[in-house]
Amino acid sequence: MRITRVIERTIKVESKIRNARVDLSEMTATIVAVVTDVIQEGRPVVGYAFNSYGRYACGGPLRERFIPRLLATEPESFLDDEGTNLDPPRILASLLAREKAGGHAERSMALGTLDCALWDIVAKIECCPLYQVLSDRFGTGRSATTVPVYVGGGFYGAEDPVATLRDEVSRWVDAGYRDAKIKAGGVSLDLDRKRIEAALDLLPSGGRLALDLSCAFDAQAGVAFAKDVKPYGLWWLEEPCDPLDYDGYHAVGETGVGIAGGENLFGAREFDNFLRYARLGSNIVLQPDPPLAYGITGLLDILSTAQTHGVPHASIYPHGGNLMSLHAVAGLGLGGVEAYLEQFGVFSGFSHEVRIADGRATLPALPGIGFEAQPALYAVMSDLIR
Amino acid sequence: MRITRVIERTIKVESKIRNARVDLSEMTATIVAVVTDVIQEGRPVVGYAFNSYGRYACGGPLRERFIPRLLATEPESFLDDEGTNLDPPRILASLLAREKAGGHAERSMALGTLDCALWDIVAKIECCPLYQVLSDRFGTGRSATTVPVYVGGGFYGAEDPVATLRDEVSRWVDAGYRDAKIKAGGVSLDLDRKRIEAALDLLPSGGRLALDLSCAFDAQAGVAFAKDVKPYGLWWLEEPCDPLDYDGYHAVGETGVGIAGGENLFGAREFDNFLRYARLGSNIVLQPDPPLAYGITGLLDILSTAQTHGVPHASIYPHGGNLMSLHAVAGLGLGGVEAYLEQFGVFSGFSHEVRIADGRATLPALPGIGFEAQPALYAVMSDLIR
Repeated sequence: MRITRVIERTIKVESKIRNARVDLSEMTATIVAVVTDVIQEGRPVVGYAFNSYGRYACGGPLRERFIPRLLATEPESFLDDEGTNLDPPRILASLLAREKAGGHAERSMALGTLDCALWDIVAKIECCPLYQVLSDRFGTGRSATTVPVYVGGGFYGAEDPVATLRDEVSRWVDAGYRDAKIKAGGVSLDLDRKRIEAALDLLPSGGRLALDLSCAFDAQAGVAFAKDVKPYGLWWLEEPCDPLDYDGYHAVGETGVGIAGGENLFGAREFDNFLRYARLGSNIVLQPDPPLAYGITGLLDILSTAQTHGVPHASIYPHGGNLMSLHAVAGLGLGGVEAYLEQFGVFSGFSHEVRIADGRATLPALPGIGFEAQPALYAVMSDLIR
Repeated sequence: MRITRVIERTIKVESKIRNARVDLSEMTATIVAVVTDVIQEGRPVVGYAFNSYGRYACGGPLRERFIPRLLATEPESFLDDEGTNLDPPRILASLLAREKAGGHAERSMALGTLDCALWDIVAKIECCPLYQVLSDRFGTGRSATTVPVYVGGGFYGAEDPVATLRDEVSRWVDAGYRDAKIKAGGVSLDLDRKRIEAALDLLPSGGRLALDLSCAFDAQAGVAFAKDVKPYGLWWLEEPCDPLDYDGYHAVGETGVGIAGGENLFGAREFDNFLRYARLGSNIVLQPDPPLAYGITGLLDILSTAQTHGVPHASIYPHGGNLMSLHAVAGLGLGGVEAYLEQFGVFSGFSHEVRIADGRATLPALPGIGFEAQPALYAVMSDLIR
């Protein structure tokens, strides 16, 4: 088998939101299609992926380096030992051969997006959903039928922020969510308190609330904020500081609140330094974003690194409310998956196959990742190969 | 005044070399031209820059984010307080406003290349060479007429490596260089010893030899190599380990050899962590690459960070044998500048204005960076605005 074509395109995310630090109105994302010469039901098997969002499209390195390298390499070197399917880790290693050390973010998104599309192909050729492939190869081998899910939202920008947040949280509860995360740290403490109290008031009994601080604080301000909100018994404070401010994370962690981070760390080496120097012990939730950080293959490396630092799979909640993260959570036995209901245009939500109830998500049954059951997104993706 | 056009292009570097880790035969670079409406001698003032090499072109983020943002912003907000010239730090801050924290390498090269072109404009409008502008604003105000220069080369790939290196070092000495750096760590220790001894044999009395290990080793192998070559009294060992392996750098530094690093660190925060956790004290030479790491503006931040860790300007040797680094060294009082004679196609060497003698380089007199006196490179750059 061989890869015959790789197509990528930059598209606008159509988002009108902002967090504590960044206005997302110009946000773009990259979608890719990897076409093979394997025929199923009369049509070539195609792998699809997109590069999450928040960090913009990554088409430059794809067009200028990685797609030409992929198409120029002998197809045999990309196959597994049986020669019947692609071997994504082998492909990733080959594509990295002419790259200097460090500077991961410049290429980890292009390679991560490509890698997720390759795993879509692997699972389609095996005729089963990606989570099952991951579970068989790297997980427990047992198939969960549902996984824990929490909903992320509560962005800033509304005219009446507390009433708007109440409406949003009510919709979440009606839709079957129990745990949730809202943005915080971008307005006065007084207003954030009102927003936190509104959300806690509406979540069902036992529902947990996390705050996403979007790197708003230095160490001192982060510690002050953590002490201020500690009485609420929150699930975690996400990204209190710049992702490279390890001492800042350590200081905020010392207040005893739960800490989360990882969406702005790009590959296992960056996670290794974060865990080594932030010294958060078991008091950490890690949130790698597969397509931003060398893909599913990169996530496997990050999980190994986390284990060497004593962070269990149950403390990994991948960033990105999408099918790629859902399969990773289900297949690798991770803590839970995020969901975005409405903020990110065609990229919001999961596929029609996924149902939410009692804070858990059912799993898709289509082979591969299953973007084919997410009509608005699949319309954009399948247009790539027309 | 305003910026009327920004043009970028990816070009091949035409290099056939390799270091201990990477084959550079596919290497590309980005060249940019920033056109203003300021007229000098009947023509608009244009700023030029390129993004160094070793990390490939960076046109994607320029085309998709930074050029559109630059052209969409009110021109007044980009001017200095007098309103008569551009203010690159103000422009950089504005272009970073819709960017998430971390992941610097994804944008620091695009922004760094743009920033260097903006400083070219600033100096052209002031009608003096860039080093003089930097010296007046941030340096001693005194103008050196020459700066220390060392030559970098000794790549792998030759059929008779020792004889080829002898020829190369002889050419360096004939051309007026006294200090030099060769690649090492990519072949057997025995062969590297012969290469080191050949180079030391040919350098003039007092000439220093550094080794560039191109991140070849983990901590243990790096320590072993450092102990093996310590008797040669080398100038420094450059990048013994992965740039994020801070403990590895610390371990190699403990052997007592001089250590250098920084070409694969992208911005002040990455330098801050490197210095904080590698704990190398005064035993370090830092090598930021201006166009790869947020430009001249980024270099100023890195110099401040270095100072907070006790690293003096004299220990900063910018990466990249080009005019941008030469102006930074002369204008900011840094340790010295690297030179590449022949390996990187049109990007090799300085301009015709720069003469080398007794291990020092004279400074260009043209306004701005002075790519106009580097004919092969300027032919490619000026073609951007045709």
